[in-house]
Amino acid sequence: MRLSLYFLPLLRETPSEAQIVSHRLMLRAGMVRQSSAGIYSWLPLGLRVLRKVERIVREEQDRSGAQEVLMPTIQPAELWKESGRYEDYGKEMLRITDRHEREMLYGPTNEEQITDIFRGSIKSYRDLPKNLYHIQWKFRDEVRPRFGVMRGREFLMKDNYSFDLDAKGAKHSYNKMFVAYLRTFARMGLKAIPMRAETGPIGGDLSHEFIILAETGESQVFCDKRWLETDILGVEVDYDGDLEPFFQQWTRLYAATDDKHKPETCPIPKDQLVEARGIEVGHIFYFGTKYSKPLGATVAGPNGETITVEMGSYGIGVSRLVGAIIEASHDAAGIIWPEGVSPFKVALINIRAADEKCRSAADDLYAKLRKAGVEVLYDDREESPGAKFATMDLIGLPWQLTVGPRGLAQGVVELKERKTGKREELTPEAALNRLAAGG
Amino acid sequence: MRLSLYFLPLLRETPSEAQIVSHRLMLRAGMVRQSSAGIYSWLPLGLRVLRKVERIVREEQDRSGAQEVLMPTIQPAELWKESGRYEDYGKEMLRITDRHEREMLYGPTNEEQITDIFRGSIKSYRDLPKNLYHIQWKFRDEVRPRFGVMRGREFLMKDNYSFDLDAKGAKHSYNKMFVAYLRTFARMGLKAIPMRAETGPIGGDLSHEFIILAETGESQVFCDKRWLETDILGVEVDYDGDLEPFFQQWTRLYAATDDKHKPETCPIPKDQLVEARGIEVGHIFYFGTKYSKPLGATVAGPNGETITVEMGSYGIGVSRLVGAIIEASHDAAGIIWPEGVSPFKVALINIRAADEKCRSAADDLYAKLRKAGVEVLYDDREESPGAKFATMDLIGLPWQLTVGPRGLAQGVVELKERKTGKREELTPEAALNRLAAGG
Repeated sequence: MRLSLYFLPLLRETPSEAQIVSHRLMLRAGMVRQSSAGIYSWLPLGLRVLRKVERIVREEQDRSGAQEVLMPTIQPAELWKESGRYEDYGKEMLRITDRHEREMLYGPTNEEQITDIFRGSIKSYRDLPKNLYHIQWKFRDEVRPRFGVMRGREFLMKDNYSFDLDAKGAKHSYNKMFVAYLRTFARMGLKAIPMRAETGPIGGDLSHEFIILAETGESQVFCDKRWLETDILGVEVDYDGDLEPFFQQWTRLYAATDDKHKPETCPIPKDQLVEARGIEVGHIFYFGTKYSKPLGATVAGPNGETITVEMGSYGIGVSRLVGAIIEASHDAAGIIWPEGVSPFKVALINIRAADEKCRSAADDLYAKLRKAGVEVLYDDREESPGAKFATMDLIGLPWQLTVGPRGLAQGVVELKERKTGKREELTPEAALNRLAAGG
Repeated sequence: MRLSLYFLPLLRETPSEAQIVSHRLMLRAGMVRQSSAGIYSWLPLGLRVLRKVERIVREEQDRSGAQEVLMPTIQPAELWKESGRYEDYGKEMLRITDRHEREMLYGPTNEEQITDIFRGSIKSYRDLPKNLYHIQWKFRDEVRPRFGVMRGREFLMKDNYSFDLDAKGAKHSYNKMFVAYLRTFARMGLKAIPMRAETGPIGGDLSHEFIILAETGESQVFCDKRWLETDILGVEVDYDGDLEPFFQQWTRLYAATDDKHKPETCPIPKDQLVEARGIEVGHIFYFGTKYSKPLGATVAGPNGETITVEMGSYGIGVSRLVGAIIEASHDAAGIIWPEGVSPFKVALINIRAADEKCRSAADDLYAKLRKAGVEVLYDDREESPGAKFATMDLIGLPWQLTVGPRGLAQGVVELKERKTGKREELTPEAALNRLAAGG
């Protein structure tokens, strides 16, 4: 994409309403615009990241055997009255009355609705297990929305729901999500640590939060430092096999949130303990028959008996992750995108747009990078080199490829890695080969 | 995908609430489930089609140079008061009050919101033209929602908005969408005919509806029969070039809706006139400064003068298209998917699942098709051959590949084209090569 054509409204000044760094950087880099309190429009650059986060979530859900559906945003109130949560949910639920005076609501979560689909569709134990996910906008009417997309009112969430015949099957479904979540966050360049959690208003027996470490995190967390060295993606996982060993292995290391951690009873020595700030990016629950019972989600068993299905639910904050990744990965100059979620892979900078030779060399690199399937944002504008470098540092693409008159005279361009700041001069062909091969 | 694992709740009986064929077939084939009046959940098979329709729409928008954004579903009422449409819109607009008693609404369209983004971001004539699109759920509180996803209350729509300096630029933007729409529908296997239309509540000077022909269409349309032979995709289009000749060429042939067509004044002879039923699937508008003026969307011109931008808006009913495609392409046995939007390309049917030899041959074909990147739905269940054929005819994938004991004994499988019913026996390798190559 040529920057001269791209809709990328950068802000020169830091907006005063933004209290945290991800919110500031997302506004400055033209990723989002506030529509009203806690509600955002995603501009082209931000939307590209949102879609990449979404794609990784989807791919790992699919790999685990979950199947994608899409439930609507507007739900009938009756379902929530059946489960007993309609009154409980309080003012966070956005309640709506339609033109025929029917009570509706903007879904804050979908346990009731998926259970309704299940009970209307699945009748036999033979059709279990099932795990259905969807990625859909939700609404929670927070009293004081803040922190940009990290705590918005309208937000994109992946939520899914597992249905099993018995507790053993349900634990296997839980383990699948446990593993899929660790893989999902690792692919985004995040170190997510699962922590035993309270089940809260969702209810249930077993629950883990997934918390990523970021200096600016909302809560204090403690964990065994060996967690930081754990290589999640290096482990081969067979979702049809026994996942309990993975679950055991990845819950054995100490990890606790502020409210659970007691220095006096902490089982690991102090020099092995990491104390850090954390951000919750996922939450999984096993809650047995909490929804299937009141809503009558049953199947016929092998002998014709009626079995109330065992359920779990699992959530990842997709839009929240865009902010969380920035919280975990930035410096004073701007965002540092992990490659898996970066809006583009390469920033191509022509520092002398008016110079015919520079333009022709940069145009040529742009065409060849695109042809090689490399996503590239090309600054072809007439701006000062300083402004161009600052813009690209702010936007934070992993690689910056700079074309300038001095280098061209020697037959070289400059390649800079955003994360390390490491610079290297090489021929345009070598740069092209490197970036096409993986950077 | 193995049918034994797939969440595909087929209905044996035709649901009585469904009045039109697409609604009946979508319910029977397990594509959607009603959540409440005019609001649907998309089940895995239906969602696959929705995503393919969405992808074609997106690709053609991108090709035309439009840029994707994503505005939220919930909008502040103030914006609509600024444009003067808040009261006008009537009961079709879903009005919402949040916990702080602020007036909000579920967007039925986004002219106001995109204009707000524009006026807050773009200040100079140098940044024009711009064309921004998004694909987002909308809500229109129809009095009597019906016809399934063809006239739902919550529906997925691609809408976009062009911003130009002057009327000439705006007409070029209009022409781009005119061409992009014809290409979009053609890629879905549809013959869409542009018809001059009233601008209605959107307002403006110039407007075309895109109407596809289907026996069960909602309105009567008339067109020159040469329209049916027009090859849209065979024409090379350069969106940066002059598009007026395309616009002229594709509006020259007679086409009119019921209310505009008068037999006595019709300019073409009767034997050249097609009279048919039609379904509206897209609508484009050029409305000048109708929204930019009240909302103050201006840019500084070359001499510093203030220019109120010229706008157009363009809509495609993405979820509606799923129903419309079925209305245009089905027979007594079920759906006939055009290949570009089919949920899978191939139905692999093992007619004797209990037979070891059949299972191993079918499993082998399944693995090889997947490896070749062919999307395949594999009926590995223990059901009668008749039930399996009926299911696959209902679902309507373009190709049915059948493995049975009699054929295998002779070293062949059967390939049937759903659209023509043409059958052919060939070796598994030949079938594989054919399907991997394009069918």
